Amino acid sequence: MNETLLRAARGRTVPFTPVWIMRQAGRYLPEYRALRKGRTMLQVLHNPDLAAAITLMPLRRFELDAAIIFYDILPPLRGMGLDLTFVPGRGPVLADPLRTTKQIDRLRVPPATEAMPEVLETIRRVKPELHVPLIGFAGAPFTLASYAIEGGYSRTFLRTKRMMASEPAAWDRLMMKLMAVAADLLQEQVDAGVDCVQVFDSWAGALGPADYRRYVAPYTRRLFKRLGALNVPVIHFSTGTAGTLEYLVQAGGDVIGVDWRIGLDAARRIAQRPVMGNLDPAALFAPWRELRARTDELLQSAGPRGHIFNLGHGILPETPLDNVRRLVDYVHEKTQGDA
Amino acid sequence: MNETLLRAARGRTVPFTPVWIMRQAGRYLPEYRALRKGRTMLQVLHNPDLAAAITLMPLRRFELDAAIIFYDILPPLRGMGLDLTFVPGRGPVLADPLRTTKQIDRLRVPPATEAMPEVLETIRRVKPELHVPLIGFAGAPFTLASYAIEGGYSRTFLRTKRMMASEPAAWDRLMMKLMAVAADLLQEQVDAGVDCVQVFDSWAGALGPADYRRYVAPYTRRLFKRLGALNVPVIHFSTGTAGTLEYLVQAGGDVIGVDWRIGLDAARRIAQRPVMGNLDPAALFAPWRELRARTDELLQSAGPRGHIFNLGHGILPETPLDNVRRLVDYVHEKTQGDA
Repeated sequence: MNETLLRAARGRTVPFTPVWIMRQAGRYLPEYRALRKGRTMLQVLHNPDLAAAITLMPLRRFELDAAIIFYDILPPLRGMGLDLTFVPGRGPVLADPLRTTKQIDRLRVPPATEAMPEVLETIRRVKPELHVPLIGFAGAPFTLASYAIEGGYSRTFLRTKRMMASEPAAWDRLMMKLMAVAADLLQEQVDAGVDCVQVFDSWAGALGPADYRRYVAPYTRRLFKRLGALNVPVIHFSTGTAGTLEYLVQAGGDVIGVDWRIGLDAARRIAQRPVMGNLDPAALFAPWRELRARTDELLQSAGPRGHIFNLGHGILPETPLDNVRRLVDYVHEKTQGDA
Repeated sequence: MNETLLRAARGRTVPFTPVWIMRQAGRYLPEYRALRKGRTMLQVLHNPDLAAAITLMPLRRFELDAAIIFYDILPPLRGMGLDLTFVPGRGPVLADPLRTTKQIDRLRVPPATEAMPEVLETIRRVKPELHVPLIGFAGAPFTLASYAIEGGYSRTFLRTKRMMASEPAAWDRLMMKLMAVAADLLQEQVDAGVDCVQVFDSWAGALGPADYRRYVAPYTRRLFKRLGALNVPVIHFSTGTAGTLEYLVQAGGDVIGVDWRIGLDAARRIAQRPVMGNLDPAALFAPWRELRARTDELLQSAGPRGHIFNLGHGILPETPLDNVRRLVDYVHEKTQGDA
């Protein structure tokens, strides 16, 4: 197996900087769009044959150094009793968002083996096909809570922030349940065969430092503590957290994943451990010369060791495939023999 | 006149920390909603009697230390030839967004006296009524460009980023035109009587450090250089810029306005000049005890001098008015005699 990603995640020397791409198994691939035709998101997520096939798609096209299971951070909310659907053109929608403490107390915490056997089956099917590490993942408690409370994506996160400030006891119970669900899911994913896990706290950047420390860090820290027992590298990913990164780092993670709104040199200085990122997904729409120049700058600011190359957030649907291929090959070429 | 805000903007000693609130003349006020009934946004913006009345509304309710003209950053785009409307529930929409270099070359740069006489008239009407400084404002070139290119608010700013990377010469012409329009508008606002101006680069936080430096800073710097001749304090405001703040500061501004996603202590350390901000607008929905505790923390991290208290972004529509009143009074009380 090509273990470059796992070595980089541990801060070891690597033959080249490993590359993977958030949402690499997704909508920018024509073969993915073809497979999705006439099927809902949940039908595909919950079909291990299809999910395994999708997981492998990007590896057929590009020399990626990891696979990531085709899944989503939100299905665990269904197992807890929430009514999740993915509405085309709008994204995830929860029909009965959490608005009362009673709803929070009714949330179940079922084991992943019972609530999400499909994703574990997907892992078992895809694993033997791979020559690169397989990444599993889960949503962090705050990001899951924000979807559960807002009912979908939000620009202001107002209801979530109101709940944490106004109902701190209920917030604590909710975050503890979400933490337990995420910890169990990741444990089961590792048992099923993943080599590395990523915790997505994608919306942690909505909060200021004081709120993050008070209402989020205690749960994230507890989650990372439990993940420490898994013996696989753990990536802690978020976006928009340039102003709170030191507190996210304190909460845990072997690798800190950041978006493009912070320089990787600054991120490394704050993290004092390996980092992942952080090309702006929009940069893939630039002419290749321009994209290459940005990639050079990025690699320069990251340094040769303890860096996993990735985008700063998910690849965008209409991304030109040629640029993806060139980018992946260029990162390998350019960093060959660096560390 | 209560000159506390102007003194704080210059870093001088103040009898208390001055307070104003972004969008203080806006939708959270029932008297504003009543006045807007049956009138479009543009009808109100372009009626100096109504705009002056709205500007004064929040001052009747709260002990604010500044007024800000009721206006918007986008009307200058109409003067340049773009078709702007405000769609209820959706926000600003440009019917013919900039997608070609030809469209950019057709944009006019009319003087503000000709294209926006109403806002200047609003200033002349409201000024004699005030015992506090009046703040004028304009959108920064990047934020205006993003609306003009995307056609409205965007989550990814993909078209804007693609234009800057793919059509650098057209991007330069566009940014120069927007810079000229903003500089002239602010000059005329000062001539009409405003005591302070704010440049809103609200969406600068969409960019990483390299993009900001290459595609935005040269124009912002030029704008601030021209504003230096106005002899009023200039506030440079943005959101989500914790990771790029040093470059925004280098571009200019007497006061640096930031949102809540960076601690004010960190912002001051980077800015080395007075700062404005930065309470999360969502904090106003918390119980008063909680809101007061956050306000204490915020004042602590800001220090007693060179701080203008504000929210980190515009006040939200359903904000409880009682909390606004308590907040404004509390900041005054708590900081009395500090510096």
